[in-house]
Amino acid sequence: MLTGRKEGFLDPDHYFDVTGYTSPDESEHDFFTVGHTSTSVALATGMARARDVKGEKGNIVAFIGDGSLSGGLAFEGLNNAATLNSNIIIVVNDNQMSIAENHGGLYRVLDELRASNGTSANNPFKAMGFDYRYVADGNNLADMIAAFKAVKDLNHPVVLHINTLKGKGYQPAIDNKMAFHWHAPFDIETGEPKAKRQPTYWDAVLAELDQQIAAGQPIVALNSAIPGAFGLKAFQAKHPDRYVDTGIAEQDAITEAAGLAKNGARPVVFQNSTFLQRAYDQLAHDVTLNDLPVVMLITSSGISAASKTHLAIFDIPYLTSLPNLEYLQASNQEELISMLQWALRQTDHPVAIRVPSGPVVHGFAAHDTYAPLQYNTIQKGSKVALLGLGKFLALAEETAAKLGEHGIEATVINPMSASTLDIKALDALKADHSLVATFEDGSLAGGFGEHVAAYLGDSNLKVLNFGAKKAYSDNTPVADLYQEFHLTAELATQDILAQLTK
Amino acid sequence: MLTGRKEGFLDPDHYFDVTGYTSPDESEHDFFTVGHTSTSVALATGMARARDVKGEKGNIVAFIGDGSLSGGLAFEGLNNAATLNSNIIIVVNDNQMSIAENHGGLYRVLDELRASNGTSANNPFKAMGFDYRYVADGNNLADMIAAFKAVKDLNHPVVLHINTLKGKGYQPAIDNKMAFHWHAPFDIETGEPKAKRQPTYWDAVLAELDQQIAAGQPIVALNSAIPGAFGLKAFQAKHPDRYVDTGIAEQDAITEAAGLAKNGARPVVFQNSTFLQRAYDQLAHDVTLNDLPVVMLITSSGISAASKTHLAIFDIPYLTSLPNLEYLQASNQEELISMLQWALRQTDHPVAIRVPSGPVVHGFAAHDTYAPLQYNTIQKGSKVALLGLGKFLALAEETAAKLGEHGIEATVINPMSASTLDIKALDALKADHSLVATFEDGSLAGGFGEHVAAYLGDSNLKVLNFGAKKAYSDNTPVADLYQEFHLTAELATQDILAQLTK
Repeated sequence: MLTGRKEGFLDPDHYFDVTGYTSPDESEHDFFTVGHTSTSVALATGMARARDVKGEKGNIVAFIGDGSLSGGLAFEGLNNAATLNSNIIIVVNDNQMSIAENHGGLYRVLDELRASNGTSANNPFKAMGFDYRYVADGNNLADMIAAFKAVKDLNHPVVLHINTLKGKGYQPAIDNKMAFHWHAPFDIETGEPKAKRQPTYWDAVLAELDQQIAAGQPIVALNSAIPGAFGLKAFQAKHPDRYVDTGIAEQDAITEAAGLAKNGARPVVFQNSTFLQRAYDQLAHDVTLNDLPVVMLITSSGISAASKTHLAIFDIPYLTSLPNLEYLQASNQEELISMLQWALRQTDHPVAIRVPSGPVVHGFAAHDTYAPLQYNTIQKGSKVALLGLGKFLALAEETAAKLGEHGIEATVINPMSASTLDIKALDALKADHSLVATFEDGSLAGGFGEHVAAYLGDSNLKVLNFGAKKAYSDNTPVADLYQEFHLTAELATQDILAQLTK
Repeated sequence: MLTGRKEGFLDPDHYFDVTGYTSPDESEHDFFTVGHTSTSVALATGMARARDVKGEKGNIVAFIGDGSLSGGLAFEGLNNAATLNSNIIIVVNDNQMSIAENHGGLYRVLDELRASNGTSANNPFKAMGFDYRYVADGNNLADMIAAFKAVKDLNHPVVLHINTLKGKGYQPAIDNKMAFHWHAPFDIETGEPKAKRQPTYWDAVLAELDQQIAAGQPIVALNSAIPGAFGLKAFQAKHPDRYVDTGIAEQDAITEAAGLAKNGARPVVFQNSTFLQRAYDQLAHDVTLNDLPVVMLITSSGISAASKTHLAIFDIPYLTSLPNLEYLQASNQEELISMLQWALRQTDHPVAIRVPSGPVVHGFAAHDTYAPLQYNTIQKGSKVALLGLGKFLALAEETAAKLGEHGIEATVINPMSASTLDIKALDALKADHSLVATFEDGSLAGGFGEHVAAYLGDSNLKVLNFGAKKAYSDNTPVADLYQEFHLTAELATQDILAQLTK
């Protein structure tokens, strides 16, 4: 709004001129492209150090919301920023909300600080060594100008803690802060969404968890600040003692899940792919190294028109590189529930399940009892075998139909797991196939297709991998990406035919 | 010591009975295998929640060192633990040391707390909502028993802050705490290491940085609590304003490096492979998404006899799955310095360089000016091409020699980059080769060999990948692992010959 881009928010003709996040390509006032939280203090500390090394002067200002303070990186940044012997101003924009409500002991203390007009003895910023100032009405322009003047050019780190109102100026956003953190198109008078609510996979998932709890499973559902993405508020209402929102603290959620599993509970972690990567070391060191039966449901994965900040095409590479973890990819709702049941029935290993994106698709349950390590052959043909992982099983089936028009009766396989190859099934293909094509909804580098290609590297089977290029796409329409990556039945068929006639 | 394993530390005949970290396989008192820090509070919080869900009673006790408090996960864990409505006891063992000295504003405040016998107003634990107790002499058994009795069975979260002496009982360890955090065999009388100091790659790296600084490069060296691994204390003495130790805060180091690069400094991050993974999201979102010229020197990577907690075979998979980042693997000192010079000369992309493990090897500089995207053909043959990445270039050369004994003149290639394939060089092999073998010092799943196999999947070239199985080995002798993975010239030659005659 302040940096010359307000039309992008006010004028429908300019809605697509600006991205939803900061972008150095758009404005000289944006230094970084940022979409994950908790980064600003560490980024600003680095910029301040660079200023000092170059012998320059000037104020370096970081903004951080109270909700973002719960992320470990925010704390690491504050702890280090506090030791600078030069200027850094950290504005803590305290609107008493994360994405959902805040969670954590810190927030009770912030309540006390605001209630005491910044004078309470328990002060988390002073307790890290900062100079500290408080502004009771951070929405008051005159007060803020005065506060900025007071901290400008200070020669040491200072926290400027300001109390603000989330949604100020628009009553529906004030009344329903969580829903308005992120919103699809809505009626501006009432705040009601324009589109009708569609059924989601989460309805079925939560119904299954209800049943499991009723049957005595000690299930605990964990998420990190985004219950709305999964309908978890309804679960919380029914099972308050089984519900954990860690706030924006993805590392803690994964490591707490390891502790829960070790002590006999059955943790089910709900997470977005792009945020799960914030807990890579916890997945590695706490969950897979200790080989604990943590169940994870991963959403918003795959090729999408997302901002590059929220691109979620890397989960197959990073999850399938970890030992002991099974990464399943559901292609429809019944298969998803079957996989979830299996994941909760076994206690041998951690299991992640990718919930497909897009509208709910119904289909067969892959197995009544999901059997890991066994590919499901949907259609037995010869010459060409198409392995369609998760959501892209449908694309494999469409491609098989197209190949049929060219007289090729292709085999179609649902591999179900991105992490464990069914070596028997792959070996069996050698007898009467010459080409294997893999389809995955994610980046190819380090992904499922590469695992298959490597396994078959010493065989006569040729392998073609279909998936995303290793690159940060940025609000690119999905259709364009599918075109670029040949992820249509038409283009995949052409590539396969070209390979067969090579 | 307290759990029946003291002979493993006192009696040479039993030194190898116990691992260096906690292990549930060894003792019922160890719940998790833990080697990375900052995990205990989140693990204990999960265990406490499981206890509560199951309707059980009992005390859940977490231990955490003051050095570990700087890690973001520790803070996330504390912030969530503070909200438990039941028993959890968090013992903060404050010995005023991280691995090196502590860094961060928090530690000045802990100094005040100890100086005031726990009464200082600035209290980071109370500032997160904890009940708090202080023990001035944590090495005094009677005091500790009394303190534990006082907090036992409390119905709410409490921090028991104890002041202890690191190295107590052994004067050399008290006098030189950093050196004795981890130690190779030493003379017990004097504390002097038994082995003579050998030259390391860091001597050459730090000499190069000295030259670059003298020439005006605004270099800043960052590490996270392990300066001793790189000889960085000497650098700090020479360039105190260019030296950053973030404490155990790997996320902050990577994100600060992004800030430094953006503001015109040249950050060089020194990191161990196993700890770099703690900053996966920062590598993705802050460094590679923003495509900033951060330089990283990665050490202690590759197949080793390490504990499974410190296994470092995953960096090729996780770093090569990220866009924009070049991951180079040096095979000798001159090549390493050449790569470092190139990394600092360019400002287009982040560059990570793996410093080989083991004794210093000298050799040619790959290119006077390192040229990315171009493989270096060491020896031109036909039929079989051996791609030896980094340290394993030597193994590729040995294997070529063995193949020579069987009348095969193999091509040997130094690919140098694990992330970018030289497509021209790979395509050129198709003319007169039938087999490509890759050698990499790391886990195969998602690694370099798989990238090569996938690229060549639609060609007539067969591909064999040599590297580590995706599994957590645990203090397994390297020779055994090499044997298992066929990473000897003898076994690789057998596999290659078997493939050629298949």
